[in-house]
Amino acid sequence: MSVVMSVAELTDLVAAVLARHGLAAEAARSVAGVVAAAERDGSRSHGLFRLPGYVATLKSGWIDGGAVPVVSDAAPGLVAVDAANGFAQPALAAGAPLLRAKARGQGIAALAIRNSHHFAALWPDVEPFAEEGFVAMAFVNARSRVAPWGARKKFLGTNPMAFACPRPDGPPLVWDQASSVVAQGEVLLAAREGHALADGIGLDAEGDPTNDPKAVLEGGAMLPFGGHKGSGIAFMVEIMAAAVTGGRFGFEDRSAAFPGAQTSNAGECVILVDPARAGGADVGVRLGGLFAGLAGAGVPRLPGDARYARRRRSLAEGITIPQETWDTVQRLLAG
Amino acid sequence: MSVVMSVAELTDLVAAVLARHGLAAEAARSVAGVVAAAERDGSRSHGLFRLPGYVATLKSGWIDGGAVPVVSDAAPGLVAVDAANGFAQPALAAGAPLLRAKARGQGIAALAIRNSHHFAALWPDVEPFAEEGFVAMAFVNARSRVAPWGARKKFLGTNPMAFACPRPDGPPLVWDQASSVVAQGEVLLAAREGHALADGIGLDAEGDPTNDPKAVLEGGAMLPFGGHKGSGIAFMVEIMAAAVTGGRFGFEDRSAAFPGAQTSNAGECVILVDPARAGGADVGVRLGGLFAGLAGAGVPRLPGDARYARRRRSLAEGITIPQETWDTVQRLLAG
Repeated sequence: MSVVMSVAELTDLVAAVLARHGLAAEAARSVAGVVAAAERDGSRSHGLFRLPGYVATLKSGWIDGGAVPVVSDAAPGLVAVDAANGFAQPALAAGAPLLRAKARGQGIAALAIRNSHHFAALWPDVEPFAEEGFVAMAFVNARSRVAPWGARKKFLGTNPMAFACPRPDGPPLVWDQASSVVAQGEVLLAAREGHALADGIGLDAEGDPTNDPKAVLEGGAMLPFGGHKGSGIAFMVEIMAAAVTGGRFGFEDRSAAFPGAQTSNAGECVILVDPARAGGADVGVRLGGLFAGLAGAGVPRLPGDARYARRRRSLAEGITIPQETWDTVQRLLAG
Repeated sequence: MSVVMSVAELTDLVAAVLARHGLAAEAARSVAGVVAAAERDGSRSHGLFRLPGYVATLKSGWIDGGAVPVVSDAAPGLVAVDAANGFAQPALAAGAPLLRAKARGQGIAALAIRNSHHFAALWPDVEPFAEEGFVAMAFVNARSRVAPWGARKKFLGTNPMAFACPRPDGPPLVWDQASSVVAQGEVLLAAREGHALADGIGLDAEGDPTNDPKAVLEGGAMLPFGGHKGSGIAFMVEIMAAAVTGGRFGFEDRSAAFPGAQTSNAGECVILVDPARAGGADVGVRLGGLFAGLAGAGVPRLPGDARYARRRRSLAEGITIPQETWDTVQRLLAG
């Protein structure tokens, strides 16, 4: 048995669950929107799978469900947002109008969010800006889980980065990738479902390679993708998301003092560039040529295309929620 | 036998070789500076090894040795430079003062170079900005050499990206990495020295895996690092370096019409962020804490540290030029 819902119905349901556990109405809708979008696009590990973690975190007192983001105009090209120990999504929503205006006016601008918790997929943070014609990058750091290249202990976060670029005749090219070989959500799923991890994904508490997801999660470390090059990306994300914003570094995480807390109080940086300002008014035509050339070179699909295909199906047929997941959501809704 | 020179002597020598083959004096000093810096830091594949390629490219007529970069104030946060079919280094030097001023004033700014040839290491383009307190990123695209993830033919360039961040009590953290598993220079070196490539580096002209560097160079393709994640980085670099700047995409390369030409007419984008503007005045102290924490976690060295160690040795003892390389340089100097 399973339940089929529209995206709007699922968003309402998730918002109700989050509000039931103390998240203010506007923030609840903002976070519910990205959870429902992940389900819609088939990003299981960032969809309803995470809802118990959101609720446990709200219950733990680690995050402030009533947080009101404070936006400040930090510099002509910079918007700073103190998320006030709340989720990153409402902070992004609060800062986005000024960010957008600055990027249009200056040609490039950045949003620096600090004191924020990001527990969702990152692509929803950049895709809308690319739909408006911007090239966008986003960086989010998190508590220590990844051993930098050459180290045997965790220090950096899984530190996702996302990139989006307008596509003239279709939805944006968008990628969103953890700096670790796999996203932490995949290790959590493997641990829950009892699957072994492939080689090269993690270390155990002694710093030795392991295939056991539980050993990675309990005192071990995840490994950066692509060896030292992915480790370099993880360093960049840590610095862009925490140093540039004034957010906490992963190693400064204090969530262990709040049993049940699954998020990190960290930071996020979003950079927008208006490609027409330096690249010329014909940049749309030129990007069209790039994407046509890729298709001609036999590239089977662009980053983001698999999600868009699943999205089209969800929008046409609804989102199917397995019975077990539905029962969990109903239990969370009850209290 | 070998020759030992100071960095200044080597810079003068390389500048003389480049000028001998038609590169204007100021541009010659600019390019010679990065060639000598690569030798100083032990980056063999971007040092004197490339000098014959610079000379052959100048002789081919593909690049304009007398190019004068044209700087324009594209937007409050953007500097655009038309390198006028010359090397990227003099274009960067021409645009750097305005870029720096904008980044200080706006908090973030970008330099968009188009119509430029970048044949050198990329870290010299970001390290000086980090020494001044900026967080810096650079993106350079190049002619098609890399098969995007899932494709069997080359389409993207090796597309290097560099990142630099100030370190309060030492030289900046700097990384510079191709989006391919290895830099093209390493494939060239392997072909010249007759070494086989490791698995996973390249495809042959049929799109099948190969260990033969010549098969990769002659109609084959290099592979992105870290699978689809490195491929995502390569897409980002192509878009930042060419679409955002108005430079040529790698697939638009026309160098084949100029026998001997080894460079690409492409683009470069450099982004500077002033981390103190949004991150707070104590960002230096906080970065010090990050780097101290890394050392405490057993990270053996930070990106860039191996180069700095070789640099210290070169500055103390001089740069040793093997006799065969010296003979090549003298031959190029003669005509």
